Amino acid sequence: MERLRGADLSQSDKCQKIMELAKRRGFFWPSYELYGGESGFIDYGPLGAILKRKIEEKWINQFVVKEGLMLIDTPVIGPSAVFEASGHTAHFTDPIASCSRCGRKWRADHLLEDQAGISAEGLALVELDAALKEHEVHCPECGGNLEAPQVFNELFKTTIGPYSEHVGYGRPETAQGIFVNFKRLHELARNRLPFGVAQVGKCMRNEISPRQGPIRLRELTIMELEFFFDPENPHCSKLKEVEEEKLRLLHEELIREGKNEPVELSVREALERNHIKAEWNAYFMVKAKRFLNELGISDGDQFFKEKLVGERAHYSAQTYDQVVRLSRWGFVEVSGHAWRTDYDLKMHMASSGVDLRAYVQFEKPRRVKKFTLKAHHKQLAQVFGKDSGRVTRLLELTPPEEVAEALKADGRYLLRGNGQTYTILPEHVTLKEEEVEEKGRRILPSVVEPSFGLDRLTYATLEYAYSEKNDRVVLKLPRDVAPIQVAVLPLVSKNGLPEKAEQIHSLLKGEGFAVEYDDAGSIGRRYARMDEAGTPIAVTIDYQTLEDGTVTVRDRNSWKQVRVSATKLPAFLREFFQGRDVFAVSS
Amino acid sequence: MERLRGADLSQSDKCQKIMELAKRRGFFWPSYELYGGESGFIDYGPLGAILKRKIEEKWINQFVVKEGLMLIDTPVIGPSAVFEASGHTAHFTDPIASCSRCGRKWRADHLLEDQAGISAEGLALVELDAALKEHEVHCPECGGNLEAPQVFNELFKTTIGPYSEHVGYGRPETAQGIFVNFKRLHELARNRLPFGVAQVGKCMRNEISPRQGPIRLRELTIMELEFFFDPENPHCSKLKEVEEEKLRLLHEELIREGKNEPVELSVREALERNHIKAEWNAYFMVKAKRFLNELGISDGDQFFKEKLVGERAHYSAQTYDQVVRLSRWGFVEVSGHAWRTDYDLKMHMASSGVDLRAYVQFEKPRRVKKFTLKAHHKQLAQVFGKDSGRVTRLLELTPPEEVAEALKADGRYLLRGNGQTYTILPEHVTLKEEEVEEKGRRILPSVVEPSFGLDRLTYATLEYAYSEKNDRVVLKLPRDVAPIQVAVLPLVSKNGLPEKAEQIHSLLKGEGFAVEYDDAGSIGRRYARMDEAGTPIAVTIDYQTLEDGTVTVRDRNSWKQVRVSATKLPAFLREFFQGRDVFAVSS
Repeated sequence: MERLRGADLSQSDKCQKIMELAKRRGFFWPSYELYGGESGFIDYGPLGAILKRKIEEKWINQFVVKEGLMLIDTPVIGPSAVFEASGHTAHFTDPIASCSRCGRKWRADHLLEDQAGISAEGLALVELDAALKEHEVHCPECGGNLEAPQVFNELFKTTIGPYSEHVGYGRPETAQGIFVNFKRLHELARNRLPFGVAQVGKCMRNEISPRQGPIRLRELTIMELEFFFDPENPHCSKLKEVEEEKLRLLHEELIREGKNEPVELSVREALERNHIKAEWNAYFMVKAKRFLNELGISDGDQFFKEKLVGERAHYSAQTYDQVVRLSRWGFVEVSGHAWRTDYDLKMHMASSGVDLRAYVQFEKPRRVKKFTLKAHHKQLAQVFGKDSGRVTRLLELTPPEEVAEALKADGRYLLRGNGQTYTILPEHVTLKEEEVEEKGRRILPSVVEPSFGLDRLTYATLEYAYSEKNDRVVLKLPRDVAPIQVAVLPLVSKNGLPEKAEQIHSLLKGEGFAVEYDDAGSIGRRYARMDEAGTPIAVTIDYQTLEDGTVTVRDRNSWKQVRVSATKLPAFLREFFQGRDVFAVSS
Repeated sequence: MERLRGADLSQSDKCQKIMELAKRRGFFWPSYELYGGESGFIDYGPLGAILKRKIEEKWINQFVVKEGLMLIDTPVIGPSAVFEASGHTAHFTDPIASCSRCGRKWRADHLLEDQAGISAEGLALVELDAALKEHEVHCPECGGNLEAPQVFNELFKTTIGPYSEHVGYGRPETAQGIFVNFKRLHELARNRLPFGVAQVGKCMRNEISPRQGPIRLRELTIMELEFFFDPENPHCSKLKEVEEEKLRLLHEELIREGKNEPVELSVREALERNHIKAEWNAYFMVKAKRFLNELGISDGDQFFKEKLVGERAHYSAQTYDQVVRLSRWGFVEVSGHAWRTDYDLKMHMASSGVDLRAYVQFEKPRRVKKFTLKAHHKQLAQVFGKDSGRVTRLLELTPPEEVAEALKADGRYLLRGNGQTYTILPEHVTLKEEEVEEKGRRILPSVVEPSFGLDRLTYATLEYAYSEKNDRVVLKLPRDVAPIQVAVLPLVSKNGLPEKAEQIHSLLKGEGFAVEYDDAGSIGRRYARMDEAGTPIAVTIDYQTLEDGTVTVRDRNSWKQVRVSATKLPAFLREFFQGRDVFAVSS
């Protein structure tokens, strides 16, 4: 993740107000306050837990159900083999510097940026060390000297079962749970390509020094999907639907020119000019933009920023971050759109020795020149001993062309797998080239991955819903994610109004609405309480209700009120929550 | 957890069939198969992930929404302070024995049960060691001698942040996330009692040797709720609704008499005879029974088994396990109903030094005799040095009556807190007894906790849905939890039928149904595929559809078919999924 910068300071008290509201009304608060707090963790209270669930459901509906994709659910803890194969044990790291006086530990790159104003992007450890010394960077706590920075792995480490040598990790992303199941999932997709698999769940990232609040967490919920397609047939079948849609892109070229402002391009233009390299990535970027629109974040408050080579994750050939303007932190990443290519499947194939390739049938048989490879077990056994079985298996999974080419060019082929490199010489194999008719081929699918941070999205939704009117908070949450949909309020707590209100409360509950009954305090105070909780509709039962059976229905956003017959109330509310402007019609 | 015993062996191939179906159709399978598997972990595939989510939603609807309770969402990882206070670092353990020859580790109590047929329940480590030696229990793997059993803590351990001494654990239950937030949650409940807070989420239990499958997992999903009530006013306000309902109880008395069969008692009888000690526990036990009924598990296949003193968790004053008959494993616990009393709040109050008591107002002021306690700081400082501040704070949170009584009886009071015991002598405090008028009092609420294992419930739902007809599998999942609700099938893949079917597919999707389109293979094969997936309804588009706009609607359970006009299809389906017997009416 990139460091958060460029906040709009004049707005930063907005964040403070939201944090205060979030605590007071039960959206979220820092975890483990009873024991002095634990930074990097937050608790969702009753309103926040439902808001978060509703955003999750909305995402599943739009990205899984509507797209006809699959959803799976795999464990948080995984054995080390998985994360060694995926590259996380080697690459999921940050530089850390200890203070030689007080012993505190810091993100070395952050210190350099904070104290010297210099980006540490792409610096090797020794260079970083030199830069820290050159700019006289010291411990922010005690001013002591810093020791040379070291690599810190941000995987949470544990052991599985009673054996201390059996290491496991908390997953830093849900993706590996999909990749290790590729074979089974491809079968469930009836061996067709393309197909997509999504997962929503907890992930763990042991950040060195997370800030407070919901932006940089050690435990977070990620919603992501891996979309597998044939790299020789990368066309997105749904491109027509989104081709003319505009995306705001701050692409690599602009960044290299020192620009900060995105340009607006249609999807077609962005693909033609190669600013987006995979069509399916472009498709899901449009969906991501629209998803944020529906959470209340307009086009002008979001754009896609390309990650430069040095900034990208180790698996990615191209990544765009979807960023949203937040009052305290400036533009913050809420989703990533990485083209992971076949990196992960390739790594898992090499590590496990299991063939993960998908068979793709040609439309009609092709005559192709093809190498076949025969491994010479005896020779391999002489050189590699007990590893020779594995070497044979790995060799047979390698495209023979690759081996042939290397042997021709260098006289040897470096076979990688299982963390080892084996030198294959011409005498270890027989390669034959022949023309054959093929009905299909075995390929490793390419993958694009839209990946969303649910915690940041929940916070962003709150911030974009936040407004004030007459010195009071009105939380204009989108209708479909509001934790409480309808408040039922007797005007006063006597003369039969509470009883009538309870009836209407039960009626609406029975109809499936999320309803809250409240009879404490003045009606004005109760309206205010509901505005603050983001409840779109308040229904008031008054003396007229007892006479003619109508109730007052109040719109949170406009404070408009209309009278509706109690019997027609469920239908009225259903229309409202389907997005219709029932108040304009009725008043 | 109790060892699983007494399986109905004649039925055990049913489990095998379900496991096979679960893999083949994508309900669940063992995790990390690519790397040889990792026992204690399972993956939910596309059908299983949705089934599990739907059972979760149903639970939330019945136990949270309908009961008007709160739902929160707190982290999996917690700092050690939390689990030291809760007693899990000390008590969440099992005895483990290592083989002196091969080094393998085993659950010592399981070995004794398996090899000697003797229950290890309640044995201390030395007694267990003696029993293992006496009955010549050996390593099941290599026959080697066993070393003396040791205690193994089943918390997954990790470190938080870059400091190796900052220990954290994966939570073994979601409950502590509720207890540590008690103050805030009680405020959000507007300082009223009773109130309840639920949480659903991943938990981690590092079992020593979990069996395959979904029954004993190292990572599991728990749905639980903590219901807080005033111990001086323990009456359940909803008792009337459930008083006459029958519960099947295998209570302590029966177990001590050596009985295996539960008796049927009404809730009223069970409470009157003190077989259930807390009214609120009885209330939620009825809800739990009904919840399982709705998942397809009849009263005859479930009952509640009381846990004996030695078997209960360290925090519980009374626990009933809800057990369900499963083909391979006999009666298996799917939910626990513990009366945790004020144990957890008391422990967290003592560890944190924060007053967690709730203020309860009397209906009218009472004149009471009351002790007041004044701590003598100077004396305490002399004895306890730097701890004296904490001792003072802890003393002030202790009911003065308790201190007075102990000083009178023993001449000293043992003050416990923060893992320490401080001896308080008469000269450290002044106690005065006086009659005062009180408007209310501060109390620690008592807690009952219904806690459900979602993974076991998901498996049990599958097993009770499993049936065979004409040598084929028909999975009779309850309508409201079926992952796919409706299959849309063109009779043949030509003559305009697929196009018409696609229209109807879109129509139903737009109406919010979970629909799957399938045009591959014969119609009989597709019906079979859907029966196996548990899809309650199949809609077939045939030549008559093109003529008169009607479709064939087929009921999974009865294989009955009726013709319905496509325009009326959404309404027809809605009625069906609301539980009405539309096929009886229509045919």
